[in-house]
Amino acid sequence: MRMRKKKNQDTRFAACAPVLLAEPQTHKGRWQELTGGRPLHLEIGCGKGKFITETAMQNPDIYYVAVERVEGALLMAMEKAMRLELGNLRFISMDAAALAEVFAAGEAERIYLNFSDPWPPKKQWKRRLTHRNMLAVYERFLTPGGEIHMKTDNRGLFEFSLCELSQCGYVLYDVTFDLHSLDIPNITTEYEEQFAARGMPIYRCVARREMRGRLSE
Amino acid sequence: MRMRKKKNQDTRFAACAPVLLAEPQTHKGRWQELTGGRPLHLEIGCGKGKFITETAMQNPDIYYVAVERVEGALLMAMEKAMRLELGNLRFISMDAAALAEVFAAGEAERIYLNFSDPWPPKKQWKRRLTHRNMLAVYERFLTPGGEIHMKTDNRGLFEFSLCELSQCGYVLYDVTFDLHSLDIPNITTEYEEQFAARGMPIYRCVARREMRGRLSE
Repeated sequence: MRMRKKKNQDTRFAACAPVLLAEPQTHKGRWQELTGGRPLHLEIGCGKGKFITETAMQNPDIYYVAVERVEGALLMAMEKAMRLELGNLRFISMDAAALAEVFAAGEAERIYLNFSDPWPPKKQWKRRLTHRNMLAVYERFLTPGGEIHMKTDNRGLFEFSLCELSQCGYVLYDVTFDLHSLDIPNITTEYEEQFAARGMPIYRCVARREMRGRLSE
Repeated sequence: MRMRKKKNQDTRFAACAPVLLAEPQTHKGRWQELTGGRPLHLEIGCGKGKFITETAMQNPDIYYVAVERVEGALLMAMEKAMRLELGNLRFISMDAAALAEVFAAGEAERIYLNFSDPWPPKKQWKRRLTHRNMLAVYERFLTPGGEIHMKTDNRGLFEFSLCELSQCGYVLYDVTFDLHSLDIPNITTEYEEQFAARGMPIYRCVARREMRGRLSE
């Protein structure tokens, strides 16, 4: 769904200046200055920001950076963060493929990928945020032991992602094909709320970038 | 479902002597004598043998060993193999946990796990054929690059297995949550036929025991 052009968008964007990092690449290699030593977690594709604002609110000891390239969604997410006066959440407006220009080796500890675009036609799979080309981008700034936390309603994207992650050196944890059937804490996205209300399953996994030993005998 | 006690079972077992390896541990380290240099593939839990007999018939260049501890099922599977006069399929009646007494390091190239018992209660998960304790058994005789091919209709078992396999050094390929929706060759089991006929999804994956490099930048 295309988002309606927001009225007074420029004014509203200007009001969100405190939470928008307009030149994020200037922080490369120096994120500790902003995080104050806290771990840095990214959400790539934060949409309207329900997930990341609630997550940031619940975890003041983590510093969050939310990435969104759709301006209308980004604006709504930033306004949520402004209203909540969150000191540990900042926003970046850019394409995920360029994130290695913003983060240096080991600067991010976790990446959230929530309901990413499934890009269904096979020739577009290279655009998927879990495509091995994108995993190679994340590899450049994710800590050893760093994690990708993924949720999706799209079966094809999930099947693909499990294989890509596994084949690119990630170890899988907490794989579930019906997240909402489990009695565990879960901060939902706007999209997830609507989708789960229709009784559709939500797929979820955690993938950890591990140096792994062989099974001992 | 418990199988009916077969009439004349002793006589029928005796007639299957040519395909039953009564003392399989005597072949440990010497399977090449039986395989004639062909790769050796195992099915653990062959049931009534539809899958393994059809697979063996289609692949004369592979030597198959089918393991089944339920006598009634084993008998039916062996009788199928006898009728088809398959020279490349033999049977073992034993518990999978003891397989390292039968195969030495590197003697098996592939393991099929088809519709294994899901053992639903969590305290029984250690009985699952993809539990890490069992993977440690397979590790003792699977070749480097060897594969586990798994099919199941049980979501919980599949979720569990993806995690166990990944966490124990296997890389995942061909993960699908609806095998029968794909237009690819697939030899079915008896159980699978009935289950798929009711429109239920079949989960499938291939897990490869790989030495893996890290993603290069």
